[in-house]
Order: sequence, then C-alpha cells, then structure tokens
Amino acid sequence: MDAAEFRKRGKEMVDYVADYLEKIDKRQVFPDVEPGYLRPLIPDCAPQDPESFEDVFKDIEKIIMPGVTHWHSPYFFAYFPAASSFPALLADMLCGGIGCVGFSWAASPACTELETVMLDWLGKMINLPEEFLAGKDGQGGGVIQGSASEATLISLLAARTKTIRRVQSENPELTEAEIMGRLVAYASDQFCATLGTTPCCSFDRLLELGPICNKENIWMHIDAAYAGSAFICPEFRHLLNGVEFADSFNFNPHKWLLVNFDCSAMWVKKRSDLIGAFKLEPLYLQHHHQERFRSLKLWFVLRMYGVTGLQEHIRKHVRLSHQFEHLVLQDERFEICAEVVLGLVCFRLKGSNELNKALLKSINEAKKIHLVPCYLREKFVLRFAVCSRTVESTHVKFAWQHISQLATDLLQTWEHDDHQQ
Amino acid sequence: MDAAEFRKRGKEMVDYVADYLEKIDKRQVFPDVEPGYLRPLIPDCAPQDPESFEDVFKDIEKIIMPGVTHWHSPYFFAYFPAASSFPALLADMLCGGIGCVGFSWAASPACTELETVMLDWLGKMINLPEEFLAGKDGQGGGVIQGSASEATLISLLAARTKTIRRVQSENPELTEAEIMGRLVAYASDQFCATLGTTPCCSFDRLLELGPICNKENIWMHIDAAYAGSAFICPEFRHLLNGVEFADSFNFNPHKWLLVNFDCSAMWVKKRSDLIGAFKLEPLYLQHHHQERFRSLKLWFVLRMYGVTGLQEHIRKHVRLSHQFEHLVLQDERFEICAEVVLGLVCFRLKGSNELNKALLKSINEAKKIHLVPCYLREKFVLRFAVCSRTVESTHVKFAWQHISQLATDLLQTWEHDDHQQ
Repeated sequence: MDAAEFRKRGKEMVDYVADYLEKIDKRQVFPDVEPGYLRPLIPDCAPQDPESFEDVFKDIEKIIMPGVTHWHSPYFFAYFPAASSFPALLADMLCGGIGCVGFSWAASPACTELETVMLDWLGKMINLPEEFLAGKDGQGGGVIQGSASEATLISLLAARTKTIRRVQSENPELTEAEIMGRLVAYASDQFCATLGTTPCCSFDRLLELGPICNKENIWMHIDAAYAGSAFICPEFRHLLNGVEFADSFNFNPHKWLLVNFDCSAMWVKKRSDLIGAFKLEPLYLQHHHQERFRSLKLWFVLRMYGVTGLQEHIRKHVRLSHQFEHLVLQDERFEICAEVVLGLVCFRLKGSNELNKALLKSINEAKKIHLVPCYLREKFVLRFAVCSRTVESTHVKFAWQHISQLATDLLQTWEHDDHQQ
Repeated sequence: MDAAEFRKRGKEMVDYVADYLEKIDKRQVFPDVEPGYLRPLIPDCAPQDPESFEDVFKDIEKIIMPGVTHWHSPYFFAYFPAASSFPALLADMLCGGIGCVGFSWAASPACTELETVMLDWLGKMINLPEEFLAGKDGQGGGVIQGSASEATLISLLAARTKTIRRVQSENPELTEAEIMGRLVAYASDQFCATLGTTPCCSFDRLLELGPICNKENIWMHIDAAYAGSAFICPEFRHLLNGVEFADSFNFNPHKWLLVNFDCSAMWVKKRSDLIGAFKLEPLYLQHHHQERFRSLKLWFVLRMYGVTGLQEHIRKHVRLSHQFEHLVLQDERFEICAEVVLGLVCFRLKGSNELNKALLKSINEAKKIHLVPCYLREKFVLRFAVCSRTVESTHVKFAWQHISQLATDLLQTWEHDDHQQ
C-alpha cells in the first residue's frame, strides 16, 4: 500500500469509525458469540501473498464486530469508562504517522517536551501543589505511563532505591541485601493510598495517612486512576486534599478525561527519585523504554474541549449517576450499597447474594445493557458505572426501567420457586 | 467535535500523515532545537474554552515538527527500526474507534480471540515449535505485550512463581520467604538469552544454554526483540535453533515487521504458567490490565503484505546493510567491528575512541543522516542500522559518501592538530 492508496483507504476508515460511533446505540452492547467463535472463521495461517484492503475491510463487520463488546455504547455501564473522543482519535492518527520513539530527549525532543508541559497543564487543572510541577526549573514533574499499575510499580521501585540509599548512608555497615531484607511496603487490599477504589469508588483518608508517612519516611503513592479526572471540577477537588503529603500521584485521563487509551498521568515531587531508580545506559539507549507520542492526545483534547468542556463531561456523568441513585432509592425492593460520590452507583435487591446474582445474570443475558458486579463486605452488589461519552438521561431511565422489570420478573419466579421448595 | 466534523478533520489528518510520510526525505532528519525549546511556544496552562481544530492543526508544523526526530526518514540509521506501515496505521484508526479494553474474554471477545490466532499465525511464520502455539486446544500460546522488557518481567514473575511452587512441593518445610531468599536468576550483561543484542546484533548460543537450563530446571526466556522478525525468512531461521529448549520467547513486530508500536509478541509453552503467576480477581477485573485491540495491526499487516511482502522487506534491509558493509570494507581507513548478520553494521575509523567520537559528532551535527554509537569491548563504535521502510540503495550510498567525506575532513584537521601538539 502506497501513500496514494492510504489517502483513499484512510478516508474510508475515518467514515467507518464515524459511522460506528454515530450509530453505536443501534448495536447490541454485548455480543452473542461463544468462546472460540473466531478461530473457525479465519484461515489457519497468514497468507503467502498480499490480500487487498477490500478483503480485510469486509471482514471487520463479518468477523470482528460480532465479537465486540461495545464500550462506547450509551448502554454500557460496566467496569469504569474507557475514555474516547474525536480529538483524541485525530491525535492518535498523527502520533501513528510521526511514529517516533520517545525514550530520550534526542530520540524525539518534541515528544519529551510536550509531555512535560502537558502534565503541567493537567496538574494545574486539578490544582496539584506546585511541587509536583516541572515548570521551568522545578524539581517535580509528570510523565505519562501506560496504566495505573505501571505507575504503582515505578513508584515502588523509586521508593525502594531511595530508601536503600537513605538507610545505607545512615548505616554504612549494612549491605544492600541486608537492607532489602528489612524493607516493608504498607498496603490495604486496594494496595496503596487510593482515591476512588474500583469496587465502590471509596476514598482513603489522605489527611490521616499522609502525616504518618512523612514522619516515618515512608514513600506515599496515591492512585486515583478513575476519580482523578473529577478533580478538575472545584466541587470535587476537596477529595484530593492531603496530596501535599504524597511523593507520587497518579490518575488516568484514559479513563474519564476523554483521552483514548493509553494515557496514565503520574507526578512526582522529585524527578531525581525516578531517574535515580532507573539508571539508563548513557551511551545508546536500549529500546526497552519505548514510548509513543502520547502527549499529543492530551494536547488535542485539552485544547479542543477546553477546561469547561471537560468539566461539563464530568458533571454530566456525576449528574446521571445521581439520577440512577434516585431511581433506585424510590424502589423499596432495592438498596444503595455505597455513597455515590462520582459516576458509580453500587446497588442490589434487598435479599440474598443468589437473588442478586440471578438479577445480574438476567440483565446481562438480555444484553440490552451491560453491568459487572463486585463484592462489598461479602455482599454481592451490582455496579452501575456511567461510562459512555454520549450517554444521556434517557439511557439511564431506560436502564433503570429495564432492570426494574427484570427484577419484577425474577422476584415472581423466585418466590414461586421458593414456595415450591 | 461531533461525528460530522470528525469526518472532515479525520480526512484532513489522513492527507497530512500521507504528505508527511511521502515527503519525509525532504525534512532534516534530526531537529535543530535546543532543550527547552517548546515551553515558551505554548501557553502556561490549558485553555478554559475550546479552541478550534484549525488552531491546533496549524501548531503541528509550527511547534511540533521543528522538534521531531524523523524516525521514518530514509536518512535515519540510528537505534533500531521503529516499524511503520500504512496497513498498520489503518488498523490503529479502527482500534481507536472501537476503543475496547481487552483484559478478559467478556470485556471484548474479538480482541482476546484475534490476538491468540494472530500469535499462532506469527509463530508459524517463524516456524516456532508447535508447543508454543495455542491451536484449538494446545497448552502453549502467544500474547501481545508492550515491549520486550515487559515480556522479560512477565517471564521472570512466571518463573519465580513456578519455581517457588516446585521447591515448596519438594520441601514442604520451607516457607515461601525462605525459598525466595534462595532464588537465582542467571544473566549476561544483556540480561537473558538474547538473539540480536542491541549494541552489535550478536547471538547467544541457545544450543549450549538450552540443555543446561532444561536439566537444571531453569526457566529459559529468549529475547529476540529486533532479530526475531528476520526468522520469517528461511535463510535466517537457523538463528532461532534451540528455541525448543525455551519456556518463553519474545520478539517485537513493532521493530522490524511493519507493525506500528506497540506490538511485542511473546509465546510460552505453558499458558498456565502465566495465568498462575497473575492471579486475577475473579469477580470483576481491575482495570489494571487494560490493553487495546493491538492484534488488529498484526491482522492488517500480515494480510496486506502477505508473508512474501514481509520477507521482501526484511531481505531488502539485510541487503542494504551488506551494501554498507562492502562500502566500509573498501575504505582502508575504516574497520567493521562485528559480523553483519542482519540489518546492523558496526564500524569505526581505525584509530582512537576520541577520533571516532569526533566523527560521530560531525555526522550528527551535519544532520544529513542520524546515527548512534555503542561500545564494543571498550572501543567506541558507530552503529549503522537500516531502519526506514522506504530506505533504498541510493540513501545508503549517500550516507556512506557523506560519512567518508566527513572522515576525510576530520582526519585532515585531526592530523594537523596532532602535529601542532
């Protein structure tokens, strides 16, 4: 394929993607296929000779789409949102075209520099303490990671290196191995200090944890993967109070800030802690630290939405989760299982775990909407996460009426079965 | 931005990317900017109100391009290739549009299943032993990772878990911590068993290492990040002999197989070793294992190039590296520093490290081509890596004439300076 054909096919693909997203509400949100559906549909091995774009293109609807869970459908309320927007898609096209690898300044200066400045923009949007920003000559700064767990791993390694050096300087008689044997990482069952946990979007108390960590020389990392995007709204910023005690902080614009995967934003107060932990071969750089030009996505999204546009997006999702919460509360058969702070509602039928498992099963088997569950203090709970960029009040109302009707049907059978036994 | 505007802007972006790649040879391969160039060119913080696409678009040439190292220029001979092709760019557009997260089968069945089948295709293309393939009911199989170091880390964790379990079953009196304290990882200064090292593309002797690892119950991981793509050509497949002893194997189609970053292919003989090492929360899945629909890129590239098209690409690069090697060998001032096996030539002026550093400096300051160095047994060496998809014999000849002329200029000054001192 040469540039001329790419121009033609690229434009066809733009239309395909626009069509897909424009009419995604017409597709069944969860697919009908069974495990193993795909292998029989395609050849056993790669073709020897080139196939045409048309051949490949027609297989998208024939082979791929029947097996896609439509994350951007307004009827998708599972997991947490996967961010997506048109400006981010455009930036990704540019990123692919440039195709640079940004593992050092020289490998692509624009890539390295835009990332630093964009993380300063983003840090200011959530009112991060100045210490976390790079500015012209600050000691802090942000970098883009692939995921929140990548950020956690990097924090852990940086903390380990820093602690070993400190202990070694205080106790020169100890070997590195001896110090390693004494290191302790404190974590809850959500791992590190977390703002907006996955099951129910609960918040650790930074103002209690922070001073202890600082006093005891413990590296504090805060994971706000989902919730962090909400801090761009002043009314939610208080949830981040205490971040001033942290050494590192992370949230995922690729979850809730309309920046397509992957873009996990991580800040540290001292960039030297990261650089010290990852000593790089100074002469040539191994290709192991490859990264694409991911900051382009942030640049496009932050500029084309503006802060107000992004705040509207967050506020719409929070408003819709409260709308759903109110609908649940009006139905005495149901209960809300955790405080609704942002875009997630945890709810269940008053009754056994088995009853709620049966309800979820009937919801996901009907495939009109899609939800996933969690356990909260051993109770099986349904999670209603406001996810899609295009979800509106009508979709939330539809979802609730549908759930409510399935509950009615289920309770009839359930009681009937109960009586029979 | 709505779907209608995306159609318009997306098509403009397709043309921009096509223009960029079609005329990339007209751009200076390495930028003129100094560190810190970008910050003064853009505002201090994100705009409150949305900006137009035009505003953002014009800044690409004004702000971004002056700071880009053009990895796909035919005058780029640095590091290793970063793969790029039009079919891969099309697949990435589709991947962004679908925007699914493939951390479990249910989260996106097509994503999970296509990945497994594509890794089988790719495994067959390099003639991997059947044990590494998933097939319909095999124990092995492949997964896509982000980088070779991610694959190495995962192998290490899987090996650790497997070894702990084995030792524990043999010595039930030992605690996990006691076993952990006894674990040993064997590595050279390139870490694990490597095919095609970064400095000079050398190859470890798998046929010697393999039987020892098997006998001693040591997990063997093979990293063929760059070289692996060449094994699709029968004449290079012998370099992979011994892979039958390995537990895991990895190479990066995003380096040399025309699949844009990121797409690092990893196979294991026993999938259960990976699954065992990464116990996942069974009820809902944390978002920590997010991955995009990366196998679409493989599918598009393997089909639209076909095996023969990809073999031609590899063979062209190897032919061009030998062309460069012959040019170097004809000039008595230079020496070749490592056997040229694939697309990399390590060479230097016969003389001091300082002389060669000065030569590299003059090459990279002239900015007509771009190279990076390495050290081989304490000798400072220039690496000439055939990188671009569109590089041809004329570019290689130009590069050599340019290097040769700069060497002539340098040697005159150098000898002159020498005489003065």
